[in-house]
Amino acid sequence: MEWVSADLEHCPLIRSLAVLGKRWTLVILREVFNNVRRFEDLQQHLGVSPSVLSRRLAEMVDDGLLERTPYREDGARGRQEYHPSQSAWALFPVLIALMQWGDRYVNDGKPQMSMVHKTSGLPVVVDLVPQGSPAYSPAEVELLWAGQPVDQPLD
Amino acid sequence: MEWVSADLEHCPLIRSLAVLGKRWTLVILREVFNNVRRFEDLQQHLGVSPSVLSRRLAEMVDDGLLERTPYREDGARGRQEYHPSQSAWALFPVLIALMQWGDRYVNDGKPQMSMVHKTSGLPVVVDLVPQGSPAYSPAEVELLWAGQPVDQPLD
Repeated sequence: MEWVSADLEHCPLIRSLAVLGKRWTLVILREVFNNVRRFEDLQQHLGVSPSVLSRRLAEMVDDGLLERTPYREDGARGRQEYHPSQSAWALFPVLIALMQWGDRYVNDGKPQMSMVHKTSGLPVVVDLVPQGSPAYSPAEVELLWAGQPVDQPLD
Repeated sequence: MEWVSADLEHCPLIRSLAVLGKRWTLVILREVFNNVRRFEDLQQHLGVSPSVLSRRLAEMVDDGLLERTPYREDGARGRQEYHPSQSAWALFPVLIALMQWGDRYVNDGKPQMSMVHKTSGLPVVVDLVPQGSPAYSPAEVELLWAGQPVDQPLD
């Protein structure tokens, strides 16, 4: 395959976009990365109707991005949480890179988002690096907004 | 801003997706990164009508992703090339990360895409790393498909 003459049907970028091309997919991933994983919480944060959210979550389960996990609170009936799958966690750097780009290039003010290593507090970036370079997992990084901590993924 | 209670209107992810949410934006970026920058070449590679392509390119110029550069071939009238802007090059790692994800997690066979450093031939990845880590520019990396070189960006 030459990139310039790539068969669009088999292009891995097109394959990604077929799954991620819906804007809401990445927004829901942002929430579940951030430990917002229960239907009611997702609905409240995203402000969508139950039927729309239900359909989107089901699509993401079908696409292998989310996994349903049962839970039960005292006195309530059993419900489901939506956890990011391994393939979803593999998108964490993509999501962060998109957020940093939007913050820097689409924001109308100065960039406000940054990312630091939780223990050392040193700045973290998403970049093209040699395989085997010291790198962090999503659980090791913390997002800052205007220098203040924001809730971070807990997995 | 707490991430969990983020104002969606000001979320940098939403801002990115407002610009990049159209599937064709990233596909056109893939082409111009790969030095396919003339209208006729883009049209041939993408198989879209001139009017559709013209509208998409104009939107990307308005969004600050592409810059028009005049050129003239012998005996022909002046035309325009579409070059990636600085903000577009800042998306190169996002595009590569998306391609690698699609190749690994959406592909129905085994992953076929890899990325190497042009000079050393050593594998390159997109990852969360400490700021200041040795990193590569887009011009320093080469994409491989099934172990074979594919055309790479020339800027």
